[in-house]
Amino acid sequence: MTILPIDGGRYGTDEMKHIFDDQNRIDAQLKIEGAAALAQSEIGMIPSEAAAAIQETATSGAITARRVSQLEAERDHDTAALVEALAERCPADAKPWVHYGLTSNDLVDTANSMQMRDALQIIELKLSRLASTLADTASRYAALPAVGRTHGQHASIIAFGLKFANWASEMANHLTRMKEMRRRVLICKILGVVGTGSLMGPEAPKVQRSVAARLKLHPATVATQVVPRERYAEYIFWMALTGTTLEKMAVEIRNLQRTEIGEVSEPFRKGQMGSSAVPVKRNPIKSERITSLARMLKGQVGIALDNVPLWHERDLSNSANERFVIPISSILADEMLETMLKIIDELYVNTDRITANLEATGGQIFAEFVLEAMIRKGVPRIEAYTDVQRVAFEANNTGTPYADAIKQDANISSILTPDEIDAIFVPDAHLGASHIIIRDVQEAVRRTISSDV
Amino acid sequence: MTILPIDGGRYGTDEMKHIFDDQNRIDAQLKIEGAAALAQSEIGMIPSEAAAAIQETATSGAITARRVSQLEAERDHDTAALVEALAERCPADAKPWVHYGLTSNDLVDTANSMQMRDALQIIELKLSRLASTLADTASRYAALPAVGRTHGQHASIIAFGLKFANWASEMANHLTRMKEMRRRVLICKILGVVGTGSLMGPEAPKVQRSVAARLKLHPATVATQVVPRERYAEYIFWMALTGTTLEKMAVEIRNLQRTEIGEVSEPFRKGQMGSSAVPVKRNPIKSERITSLARMLKGQVGIALDNVPLWHERDLSNSANERFVIPISSILADEMLETMLKIIDELYVNTDRITANLEATGGQIFAEFVLEAMIRKGVPRIEAYTDVQRVAFEANNTGTPYADAIKQDANISSILTPDEIDAIFVPDAHLGASHIIIRDVQEAVRRTISSDV
Amino acid sequence: MTILPIDGGRYGTDEMKHIFDDQNRIDAQLKIEGAAALAQSEIGMIPSEAAAAIQETATSGAITARRVSQLEAERDHDTAALVEALAERCPADAKPWVHYGLTSNDLVDTANSMQMRDALQIIELKLSRLASTLADTASRYAALPAVGRTHGQHASIIAFGLKFANWASEMANHLTRMKEMRRRVLICKILGVVGTGSLMGPEAPKVQRSVAARLKLHPATVATQVVPRERYAEYIFWMALTGTTLEKMAVEIRNLQRTEIGEVSEPFRKGQMGSSAVPVKRNPIKSERITSLARMLKGQVGIALDNVPLWHERDLSNSANERFVIPISSILADEMLETMLKIIDELYVNTDRITANLEATGGQIFAEFVLEAMIRKGVPRIEAYTDVQRVAFEANNTGTPYADAIKQDANISSILTPDEIDAIFVPDAHLGASHIIIRDVQEAVRRTISSDV
Amino acid sequence: MTILPIDGGRYGTDEMKHIFDDQNRIDAQLKIEGAAALAQSEIGMIPSEAAAAIQETATSGAITARRVSQLEAERDHDTAALVEALAERCPADAKPWVHYGLTSNDLVDTANSMQMRDALQIIELKLSRLASTLADTASRYAALPAVGRTHGQHASIIAFGLKFANWASEMANHLTRMKEMRRRVLICKILGVVGTGSLMGPEAPKVQRSVAARLKLHPATVATQVVPRERYAEYIFWMALTGTTLEKMAVEIRNLQRTEIGEVSEPFRKGQMGSSAVPVKRNPIKSERITSLARMLKGQVGIALDNVPLWHERDLSNSANERFVIPISSILADEMLETMLKIIDELYVNTDRITANLEATGGQIFAEFVLEAMIRKGVPRIEAYTDVQRVAFEANNTGTPYADAIKQDANISSILTPDEIDAIFVPDAHLGASHIIIRDVQEAVRRTISSDV
Repeated sequence: MTILPIDGGRYGTDEMKHIFDDQNRIDAQLKIEGAAALAQSEIGMIPSEAAAAIQETATSGAITARRVSQLEAERDHDTAALVEALAERCPADAKPWVHYGLTSNDLVDTANSMQMRDALQIIELKLSRLASTLADTASRYAALPAVGRTHGQHASIIAFGLKFANWASEMANHLTRMKEMRRRVLICKILGVVGTGSLMGPEAPKVQRSVAARLKLHPATVATQVVPRERYAEYIFWMALTGTTLEKMAVEIRNLQRTEIGEVSEPFRKGQMGSSAVPVKRNPIKSERITSLARMLKGQVGIALDNVPLWHERDLSNSANERFVIPISSILADEMLETMLKIIDELYVNTDRITANLEATGGQIFAEFVLEAMIRKGVPRIEAYTDVQRVAFEANNTGTPYADAIKQDANISSILTPDEIDAIFVPDAHLGASHIIIRDVQEAVRRTISSDV
Repeated sequence: MTILPIDGGRYGTDEMKHIFDDQNRIDAQLKIEGAAALAQSEIGMIPSEAAAAIQETATSGAITARRVSQLEAERDHDTAALVEALAERCPADAKPWVHYGLTSNDLVDTANSMQMRDALQIIELKLSRLASTLADTASRYAALPAVGRTHGQHASIIAFGLKFANWASEMANHLTRMKEMRRRVLICKILGVVGTGSLMGPEAPKVQRSVAARLKLHPATVATQVVPRERYAEYIFWMALTGTTLEKMAVEIRNLQRTEIGEVSEPFRKGQMGSSAVPVKRNPIKSERITSLARMLKGQVGIALDNVPLWHERDLSNSANERFVIPISSILADEMLETMLKIIDELYVNTDRITANLEATGGQIFAEFVLEAMIRKGVPRIEAYTDVQRVAFEANNTGTPYADAIKQDANISSILTPDEIDAIFVPDAHLGASHIIIRDVQEAVRRTISSDV
Repeated sequence: MTILPIDGGRYGTDEMKHIFDDQNRIDAQLKIEGAAALAQSEIGMIPSEAAAAIQETATSGAITARRVSQLEAERDHDTAALVEALAERCPADAKPWVHYGLTSNDLVDTANSMQMRDALQIIELKLSRLASTLADTASRYAALPAVGRTHGQHASIIAFGLKFANWASEMANHLTRMKEMRRRVLICKILGVVGTGSLMGPEAPKVQRSVAARLKLHPATVATQVVPRERYAEYIFWMALTGTTLEKMAVEIRNLQRTEIGEVSEPFRKGQMGSSAVPVKRNPIKSERITSLARMLKGQVGIALDNVPLWHERDLSNSANERFVIPISSILADEMLETMLKIIDELYVNTDRITANLEATGGQIFAEFVLEAMIRKGVPRIEAYTDVQRVAFEANNTGTPYADAIKQDANISSILTPDEIDAIFVPDAHLGASHIIIRDVQEAVRRTISSDV
Repeated sequence: MTILPIDGGRYGTDEMKHIFDDQNRIDAQLKIEGAAALAQSEIGMIPSEAAAAIQETATSGAITARRVSQLEAERDHDTAALVEALAERCPADAKPWVHYGLTSNDLVDTANSMQMRDALQIIELKLSRLASTLADTASRYAALPAVGRTHGQHASIIAFGLKFANWASEMANHLTRMKEMRRRVLICKILGVVGTGSLMGPEAPKVQRSVAARLKLHPATVATQVVPRERYAEYIFWMALTGTTLEKMAVEIRNLQRTEIGEVSEPFRKGQMGSSAVPVKRNPIKSERITSLARMLKGQVGIALDNVPLWHERDLSNSANERFVIPISSILADEMLETMLKIIDELYVNTDRITANLEATGGQIFAEFVLEAMIRKGVPRIEAYTDVQRVAFEANNTGTPYADAIKQDANISSILTPDEIDAIFVPDAHLGASHIIIRDVQEAVRRTISSDV
């Protein structure tokens, strides 16, 4: 019987869930024990036969989550149980050197880093692909005029591709943020009970550097018993921030898919049910799910921030909730990216509706351009504004197309000729710098993806 | 392989986890189908044979989470799958009347209410027991003088029992809040697609009332497709607020258990390990865990509030996160209560240290009472204050006991006699109304537990 | 120069801002000093002349925020400054009895309660009026069929008034919640330094009861140096929860006011500018502002919850942020209610667009009712569902009105006669129990407003 | 009368408050108008005389917040009012070119960036100074053995300086994070109504680049009507994250200043009152205030994240709350840094108490090192652990110094000689790599402060 929908299989890709399962966490901690033993033996701190034996046993695959659980039931301490499970399989000569100079949190925190390292790698690939796809989609619709809406109202004309360009650009930013945070977050901490490395003495940092290199992590500059939790808060916030961009996209898709707007539609599988009562709807359920999960990600941020002010050289108040917060954030962010990739890859864009919607206000969407044309002819902004607004409201009341109303207005027609007016009411004329912006975004995305930092 | 520590067995009592497991949720939804069918047949809306068959099939135990999962894999819609799983086991005559007039969320939301109803029942018992135990403990230490601390500094004298009285009183408040919220939160909603009950017509509210009565829930006054999410936010906030009181207690225990204070200690099992490196410590790990989980509960509140402003007659943006938020909050609040009960039941109170700590400031803890004695003799507050402070600082510097320094001070000794001064430096003299307050709290707790609302 | 937009005058009604201004807070604290002196003299704890003098001076209006500020600059302690400002204006005989047996937080917390008491009174009136107005509006549109939307898609038919009934009902719930919380939140605490009332002795609770009665507050059952912060968290959450309902309404209005939907419009003042660039838009800026401020309210909840676990008999970590959180929540919630009242009072409801929108799907909005009609004729749900969906998709593709497509379909027309089909495609036929529900809501609102608890 | 404690003068430095006052915001927006006019005239988009006049008027200091307020009262639109206030003072020929091609949010968002730019500059200086001071303090106490505490319990020995090294290192990280985020957050957006730059045409990005350079900001790669709110969320989170490190320090100081611990003390001004009732306490009120304000900063993060998913090309739901969130976060973070600088600069470190506290457990703090000595002699960890723990508990019960108990124990004394045991019970022997770590931190801080990115 499952309870939460991650273990239950509803959310989460297999690859990401694997990273956070019990056995993988234990394997990571064992790898650290092995790496530490080797590092210590290299500088003569422990015998090299012992180190080799510890490393071999630790990475043999023979130490199971189940055995650790059994020992934990006796000891009430999960890392102590792991150390015992390792020691009991090591040869007698090696036993004293198992976990030498280490403390539980050297394992817990460094293993967290290994899991986060692998999670970020998976996420980076999907994020890069999403950024590229969005930039390409932007380019595909760079010349398609569409309604630009502010306050939910038709406001002006955009190139439809600009929507995707905005998203692509922000995804590139998330990539940059990820690359920057890695060296702070993916920390190897091997400094013992209270961060002095006391049992290893002055050579502790050397051991730590060696272990970090083996595990592809960054050595801690300084620590208490634990890695400072600012780093985890940064990781969790990154997930949430990336989540809000996905939420922004999802909300846009939900709005554009409205019955009354119909400019896009999520891919819809044949046979998929829209509702148990209404058969014909195409509900944007993927985007709604992303919206829902974005709230989950945001909810984790406060928890991670609360974990920062631990008492003295550490207290345990971060521990229980990190067992939730780190996997939940990682697994759901990945799930959301995966879902968004599917949506964008097969998004149905209804260019007919996009074009038709430009007509919905009877031409009033061009008012801004009438205004500017008048200003350019020397009419003070406030006067021009008053005229443009007055005619717009009259046209609204009488149902007259705005272009006609403009031409018929004494004030405005004394300033703009019919030809000038006609030239205004052409959507393609108002895309401004859209194509340049979209091209710049494509370039920026490409650069970011291939950049090392 | 398990991922999150609820499914993994680390957190959560069996009784509470059972409420939120897959099969129990499905069983709840099936009960609703049965109850709705019976209610509809009572007023002649559907044939009574059909209703009886639906009710029987629905509650037969034959419809498994596994079968529903299979069907969901085909339909991409979990409630539709459940309805189909029910219908396929009903006799042909009954099939058309399965789910008659209902919509998915009549099941989802009403089942949520059933789960929350059961969760609250479990929690109410533990909360009541905790409130009682705390009130009793308060009473036990009603006459024990102890250091009262503000800003982390010794400030004055309290009856040690007051600490427990404060907690007991707040637990009683949580009980009252729970009793009040039940009629808003435990809602039965059987009003169809968009809350009009359209397919059942004007008799929909009658059906809903009947189903609610069968399920021991409260009928919705009005709804959209869903129960308003304000109700869930209230439930989730209740868990978080109760959690913060538990956190307050946990933080107090952690502080009082400090090596330097030592006034209380969590129960510590023989053989339990304190640390993988330091053998002799007695870490307040249960209280630390409660602190950690309290942050989890707080983190759910924002998510629940974000779910309130759904679009129109509903959108799905609440759905995915509620699969986490409701069970996580319920299961962890219960876990925390259970843990706190264990702590309080066997809390080790070190009365020797409590009494010894009163001496730590060399008597300066009585300064407040010297001050008031002087004011009562007519010395202006500011003048008295200046004297009391001056002598305190001098005594500090010379290491003189404060009572002696007071007696030796020319100003103060001209106002207070040695006997008057001696009478001040007696802890028991300063418990004020503590015993009355504690007795009142006991009474209030008793009244609240037995109250219906 | 102003910085934040409350002091700057952008947000907040005068009546609510007055409650939280400096002088009013000081006046409240002075009232407590006066009430405490009187209460103490009644039972002979202090001389009655002194008490009378203290009360008179405290309520004379002569003690200004400015004078308290001056003294605070010397003392670094705001309440000590207030006590000194009071004492310096009292006759010599009364001076020793100023602030007798009290501690700073007896003033701070009890004054908080007085401010919250007054804030709730203002809010209660507006909330009641909003609930009534919403219930009346619900009633006005109880028979107007409108599109019900789920997932942003046309889903079914509702009575337009149901939207308002849902909101009215939730406002009534907020009223009930407010009435319930008052007795927990509006606390008078007069129990001295660490909650024992030590300087007043066993009579402290009697003094406290008397002060509470004078100030129309509820006496604390028990306290530390401070009132438990659970109470404040409950108050702040109430504001946030009420805010989310206002946000839900605001989001609905913004969506219904969309150019493409046009079912309602916020009142729009003549001459008001929509945008500096686009003259003709009518932006729902009031609703957008409510949405924005709702986020502010939600943001205060976590802060208030964080204040609960104070150390020992109190620490000061709640103090600085409560100077923000309590006024911000109260003032913005009131601002939002005020704004929403204006919106609803003059909301423009475009019944033509509401009716026209029912046609937007070419009749497919009736699919649900076709489905049920078939089931009632004995067609298994899944079969009926398949037919209804198939015909809907075909009609979509060919642009055929759904009623016609249904009539032309061999399967369906073999089950439903043309007359039966025609009877389905009538919006008024599908309002179900809407009028009953709306009537029940009106009744519930009326009952709640007049209820004492 | 003031309401909130920023306008009221309680919190906030003058330099930081100036950045966010009304007039400064208006001046920033005017600077943008001037810069945009110049940029447009450079490429011949508008006449250069007009541009010169606009620039001169905009930066003349003659356009006051008060005049803008008056116009806003008429127009209900603050930016439109500003544009009008500018235009009314420009010569007639220049008027048509005022605000040419711009939209309100070109001003609002770019002015936000200018304010954040200046705020970060102030904060960077203080942060750098704090990091340096902390690193120096770490160095000063690099050789002072002190109790290391985990779970609130004495756990092991640290160099007292390590505490400061941890904080210094995290401050350096915050500096790096700030330098990284600047190029994303400090954005100049001059792209008109919906981000196409339509009125300026393809040259819009060129204008934007020129304006950005004049204002020392980064040009937007792409935007909707507004700068993507991810950037603001990043800024607000940075403040909150930095705040949690300050909170961590504050909580540590509060704990170390406890009556029972007494290792440090905040600077305490002569004549400052500790409490209105207890004269002799030295309350860590500065650290408590930092703790309190840290909660405020955390509370802003959720608000900022909620602003990200704006609808379409923008909605206004970010607007009202940003008027609070941005100044509150900036002003309080600066206030907290300023306060922490004062605390650390004059922190009283009681080395006697630090040394004395090492004795508090009768030597049991050395247990870890006894354990390791035994393991190094070949005793299996679990066996050694059992002995060390057993003797520790016995010594506890009998009140024997742990070193003596160890020597008297048959098991252990058969393994370790008295000399070996004596060599263990020396605090200085257990500082491990503390001095190296502290030196590395100093170096890292120095490098970070002088680094460009």
